[in-house]
Amino acid sequence: MELTKQLAEAVLSADPLQDERAIQMARNGLLDAAASAFAAKEDEGIQQLMQLIEQEGGAAQIPVIGQGKKMSRQSAALLNGYLIHALDYDDVHSDVRGHPSAVIIPALLSQLTEGKGYGERFLGAYIIGVEVMARLGESIGKAHYERGWHNTGTLGAIAAVCAIGYLKQVSMEELTKAIGFAGAQSSGMRKQFGSDMKPLQAGLAAKTAVWSMDLACSGFGGNDSVLDGALGFFSLYGDLELAKSRLLEGYGSTWRIVSPGLWFKVYPFCSAAHHAADAIQSLMKERSFLPEQVKQVDVIFPPGGDAALIERTPLTGEAGRFSVEYVIALAVFGQTLTLDAFTKKNIPSNMRTWMKRVSRGYDQTTEPHPNAVPKGRFTIVKLTLTDGTTMSKRVDIPQGAPGCALSKEDIIQKLSSVTSASQAQQILQAVEEENDTAYLKWLT
Amino acid sequence: MELTKQLAEAVLSADPLQDERAIQMARNGLLDAAASAFAAKEDEGIQQLMQLIEQEGGAAQIPVIGQGKKMSRQSAALLNGYLIHALDYDDVHSDVRGHPSAVIIPALLSQLTEGKGYGERFLGAYIIGVEVMARLGESIGKAHYERGWHNTGTLGAIAAVCAIGYLKQVSMEELTKAIGFAGAQSSGMRKQFGSDMKPLQAGLAAKTAVWSMDLACSGFGGNDSVLDGALGFFSLYGDLELAKSRLLEGYGSTWRIVSPGLWFKVYPFCSAAHHAADAIQSLMKERSFLPEQVKQVDVIFPPGGDAALIERTPLTGEAGRFSVEYVIALAVFGQTLTLDAFTKKNIPSNMRTWMKRVSRGYDQTTEPHPNAVPKGRFTIVKLTLTDGTTMSKRVDIPQGAPGCALSKEDIIQKLSSVTSASQAQQILQAVEEENDTAYLKWLT
Repeated sequence: MELTKQLAEAVLSADPLQDERAIQMARNGLLDAAASAFAAKEDEGIQQLMQLIEQEGGAAQIPVIGQGKKMSRQSAALLNGYLIHALDYDDVHSDVRGHPSAVIIPALLSQLTEGKGYGERFLGAYIIGVEVMARLGESIGKAHYERGWHNTGTLGAIAAVCAIGYLKQVSMEELTKAIGFAGAQSSGMRKQFGSDMKPLQAGLAAKTAVWSMDLACSGFGGNDSVLDGALGFFSLYGDLELAKSRLLEGYGSTWRIVSPGLWFKVYPFCSAAHHAADAIQSLMKERSFLPEQVKQVDVIFPPGGDAALIERTPLTGEAGRFSVEYVIALAVFGQTLTLDAFTKKNIPSNMRTWMKRVSRGYDQTTEPHPNAVPKGRFTIVKLTLTDGTTMSKRVDIPQGAPGCALSKEDIIQKLSSVTSASQAQQILQAVEEENDTAYLKWLT
Repeated sequence: MELTKQLAEAVLSADPLQDERAIQMARNGLLDAAASAFAAKEDEGIQQLMQLIEQEGGAAQIPVIGQGKKMSRQSAALLNGYLIHALDYDDVHSDVRGHPSAVIIPALLSQLTEGKGYGERFLGAYIIGVEVMARLGESIGKAHYERGWHNTGTLGAIAAVCAIGYLKQVSMEELTKAIGFAGAQSSGMRKQFGSDMKPLQAGLAAKTAVWSMDLACSGFGGNDSVLDGALGFFSLYGDLELAKSRLLEGYGSTWRIVSPGLWFKVYPFCSAAHHAADAIQSLMKERSFLPEQVKQVDVIFPPGGDAALIERTPLTGEAGRFSVEYVIALAVFGQTLTLDAFTKKNIPSNMRTWMKRVSRGYDQTTEPHPNAVPKGRFTIVKLTLTDGTTMSKRVDIPQGAPGCALSKEDIIQKLSSVTSASQAQQILQAVEEENDTAYLKWLT
């Protein structure tokens, strides 16, 4: 059987609600996504996007998180996806090499309608979406990301359309065609990292998923085997042979949302710099020093481990989300690694000058920890002070990553720091009650 | 200077309205696009799309061709792009290896507002759009299409955003960012050929262009050199080195809309089958025969010349737009190669059975004609009758292609066959008068 049909069948026949660990993780994922979106509610980009969308008009259908407004289903998916990913504070998944929840949750929220009973299936659909996106990530191969594709964008639409397919329990024909529509609209470039367009690529994937399923359910004509063959999605964006062996191997035995699991972020910047952030802070606890006392910092990755960190001397805090140099400078200058350091404001020139003391290196002889997150990753920070002292710290599993995960209480704390107590309570209630009314209530 | 900035500068500083031949061709192009859209006005897909879009709501801003309705600017771009390309009756361009007008014209129509003076620049903007799309086609390399990308979709958004940039005379910063937004949303798969999604991919590119320019003009943040570098558009979708030598070489010396020029279609199916259509009809004039008197038909292409013809035994007339076997069968069965043969209706089983008598072959020893359209193309149809007679006909430049082009009168005839006389008159008036009022009048 073709991969497209196999995937659709696996999605529609799955029963993730039997797995209590998966449900707990999905609850945490939804709370963390809400926290990430509320943290971005004052973002300048969201205001620009809402103004643009309002010029085009549209029905008031689905709430935009924290904005006190409803937009059309597609527009809400775009805006909520943008919001969740805006600060790069949302979860990542190592199989995806990207951000599953920023695409899947907004696509699902846009389906909610009182009385449909989708609330009961919401967490299950989310589990399925993460599952498909993780499997797409493994199937598309490492070269996909390395060439410059933004996996969150390129894999998100197909994954989210599968999540919607499970939520609405569509037919095989509808789901295979929807996968095809989503696949043929998949895009997103790493070249846009460090700009507003990066989080928008998450929102666009969510919107594409909503629209692709609508197209399929309207009877609009499309190919029902887009993942397959020499001209298909995997051949074009990745490697069909790899996909044949990976896409459905052991489907449903352990949900990917549990293992390797979602990584909830402690810091609001690219996860590839989290190991270094932990390392430098640990070194600073060993001994105190001033920025001018630092002669050199060497940050050692496995080859390719810093691919996402495309900025070396960023101009703004926003671009600094993709700069290990900036993260280390912030720590050494005694600043906290919190939201206010990663805005559109320019980085002070003395800090930018200091960042030149940070060099990157690559080591393929160091053996990664068996449970390293992501697989095969480590970061070693070597510090040389002007007095000749050298210090070194290696991190394989950063705080927040699976193996060093945030507890539900930690995530509630993250949420409470960016919302009102009553809003946090409503979100908690929704993930516990799992019905349409509770879901729609927290959103508004 | 980087390619993105070079392209933006070339677009904004060009003056295509000095070239009378280019303007005449642009007029013909607009008339032919209108004819192609009106021919599709009863299409089932357009009704499904309009219903879906109406569910989302939206302001009534720009008319949808022949539908007596206005939609939001983005939705109108999508719908008009779909309509022009719906029947595969619209122009092609050999440098593009796809359909420039189906993307560029709808994107431009969505900018029209009374009193802006865009009417005066409309044909110039269209010339620029074709220019950029042709140059993108050459720059992206042959492998792009062969791997499975649908050039109309993948190149159309950037080209159309450049056309809009010229129309609105935006700033360099706005245009470079808009190119970046369009580039990062570029998609479209040949796997969707033969389904409604193929023409929708043209409409999606047009919509992406409208939205990308709006994003750029709103100040939303994005990368301003998306075409460049190891992670950029050309590296990702094609070949950056090729692009460096091709994208701007001799820019503006001869407009590509004139040479090699737009190909206006005589038949409503994929241009790759037009040579064979001319050949079989020519053979049938030499000697009359019945379908059952045909033992075998060999259709010989240069290697890869039939890549777009992805259907060998299509089920419906719609899929038959991409089948040289179906085109030859229609002719041999005495049917005309007109719109009514390429609908969603099933192909009769006796005709499908007969189609097995048609074989494809490839010949790399035959020398293509120096003016062949597209470059390097030819098709030889060899007929073997049951009585042993063999006949053969070679075509290098099919009817309608540059070198054998339709005259303005032919195109007006094509237009008049699908619109009322008064509608045709209004469209003619718009391309002659070139002002906002006349353009908006023909659309409504």
